[in-house]
Amino acid sequence: MANDYTNRTDVNELGEFGLIEHLTKDHPPKNASSIKGIGDDAAVIENGDYLTVVSTDSLVEGIHFDLMYTPLKHLGYKSVVVSLSDICSMNAIPRQVTMSVAFSNRFSVEAMEEFYEGVHAACKRYNVDLIGGDTTSSPKGLFINTTAIGQGVKGKIAYRSGAKVGDIICITGDLGGAYLGLQILEREKQIYLSNPGVQPDLEGQDYLVGRQLKPEPRLDVIERFEKAGLVPTAMIDISDGLASELFHICKESGVGAWLEESGVPIKQESEMMAIKFKMDPITCALSGGEDYELLFTIDPKDVEKVKYLPGIYMAGEIIEAKDGIKLHTKGGNIHPIKAQGWTHFGND
Amino acid sequence: MANDYTNRTDVNELGEFGLIEHLTKDHPPKNASSIKGIGDDAAVIENGDYLTVVSTDSLVEGIHFDLMYTPLKHLGYKSVVVSLSDICSMNAIPRQVTMSVAFSNRFSVEAMEEFYEGVHAACKRYNVDLIGGDTTSSPKGLFINTTAIGQGVKGKIAYRSGAKVGDIICITGDLGGAYLGLQILEREKQIYLSNPGVQPDLEGQDYLVGRQLKPEPRLDVIERFEKAGLVPTAMIDISDGLASELFHICKESGVGAWLEESGVPIKQESEMMAIKFKMDPITCALSGGEDYELLFTIDPKDVEKVKYLPGIYMAGEIIEAKDGIKLHTKGGNIHPIKAQGWTHFGND
Repeated sequence: MANDYTNRTDVNELGEFGLIEHLTKDHPPKNASSIKGIGDDAAVIENGDYLTVVSTDSLVEGIHFDLMYTPLKHLGYKSVVVSLSDICSMNAIPRQVTMSVAFSNRFSVEAMEEFYEGVHAACKRYNVDLIGGDTTSSPKGLFINTTAIGQGVKGKIAYRSGAKVGDIICITGDLGGAYLGLQILEREKQIYLSNPGVQPDLEGQDYLVGRQLKPEPRLDVIERFEKAGLVPTAMIDISDGLASELFHICKESGVGAWLEESGVPIKQESEMMAIKFKMDPITCALSGGEDYELLFTIDPKDVEKVKYLPGIYMAGEIIEAKDGIKLHTKGGNIHPIKAQGWTHFGND
Repeated sequence: MANDYTNRTDVNELGEFGLIEHLTKDHPPKNASSIKGIGDDAAVIENGDYLTVVSTDSLVEGIHFDLMYTPLKHLGYKSVVVSLSDICSMNAIPRQVTMSVAFSNRFSVEAMEEFYEGVHAACKRYNVDLIGGDTTSSPKGLFINTTAIGQGVKGKIAYRSGAKVGDIICITGDLGGAYLGLQILEREKQIYLSNPGVQPDLEGQDYLVGRQLKPEPRLDVIERFEKAGLVPTAMIDISDGLASELFHICKESGVGAWLEESGVPIKQESEMMAIKFKMDPITCALSGGEDYELLFTIDPKDVEKVKYLPGIYMAGEIIEAKDGIKLHTKGGNIHPIKAQGWTHFGND
């Protein structure tokens, strides 16, 4: 009677992206309205004059967040944000979200109120409606699933697959901060666990800790693109680290990339904290996740449009696939970039 | 540092529906395109000529399913079905689904393949595209979240709130079977646990066990409504038991209901199994869940249209709210009906 699903191929052999591809290949969309299925930040559905853009994300306690140092209100806020960020990365405007939460009986009504306060705060800030979802119990832990729905305009959706040789690689803001914020929180957690009398020392760390606990989707950038008449040739949000996202664009577009270390935006706070943790700042930017900035490429003829947008960093150029994905360091060296980013299938 | 979210108001004091209402009230939709938010089987979004209908559902191991007797392929199939059923209950056609799965390292790649085989089988059968989702790890257990997206026609969406006094109450198929199938599986599990050498005795129980493990959404009924030119005044899918669903319609429509026991469809297999388990068959129909039939109301002028549809049972009439929700038994007695249905917030 008992079903045995153990002792076979370990999921780690494929990794998260390999697994999704493995489980969903050979099933192309059949409905004419399904314009884009699995394989981008969001799916795209045709709906008369507009396109409906849909994205779904899960956040799992013990994998994606630690309630020791994550206030539930921030978690509710972030759960909405990660989903909105996916809609923005398609060059679409988020309109609605659904929120499903499974939680164990260690959570009280007040705890869920705090969580939903954050959910509503994010919805309000980004003018998005919470239109559905469910709450159910779980035997252990907190599981969150958010689906965001957005509206896009035909011909203006930015897929991962549109980058062309010669396109300029752009980034919307500083990277590595969210990862370093997480390192600070983890350090304080360890200190607290070994000596519960010691209060956490987060003074002066507001910026980095804030990048981790309360990220924002770059809806402002999407709105500026619209005003500037700019449509990126390809776009993706930076949730798993710059290297991983650049790999996605290169793979889907069939191109390579030349990245200038000097063009990758890293804040001074991040540089200093990285050094404190004995890490290389560029490694934090390449492999640290959760900054939720946008990585996009533009046709060189649009450079003038980007120049007048605030806070956009040009960081490199799309090259031939055969030339690979390379980092040109400040020291003048050229290194191949490896896709790292977060892997959630470690031996947790 | 540690956040304490325990020892306050217990979630059981509100129950699932009370909790959702509590957490989402006072946040009416702001986007003009959000026609219907929380409080029905699915949300409704305006999209030019068509309406987009969106519903999301979670299935949690140990709460909604038991892998001791649920084959993963069936679970994948059912995960899609419960979500499609919500779209059908709005009188809309499901077109796309997203699937998010969080699973622990006790699941192998082959296990996830089996699960997705079921997902793809349901998508194929109902001509729905799997357009997105994610897979991630969980520290313990299997968590599934499905979002279904459908297409509706303006003026033809069936909300819970449209039932009027005098409307006829209809049901699309037999009830109680899925609940009794679950009782059989639970019984065999207990026998297996106390004596692992004994093989399960499911002979002759295909129908009831099938109702539990492999439900179907009544898309066929929605398609027949379209052909017959029929639009129900209100509709809901029967996932939590007839009593609970009737309560939802009555509450949202501001009406009462008169239900004839003789009009509630119950298969002979279910009657006999209920008696074997020393249960009342009508109680299984009223309070057992997961049959995924549709409960709907029609204007009396549409009775002729329904008469020619196969397998539709007329089971009562909508009455004034002040007259309550009542069951007229086969024995001639009148009982008030209480909303029971599944509660997932027990002390699991």
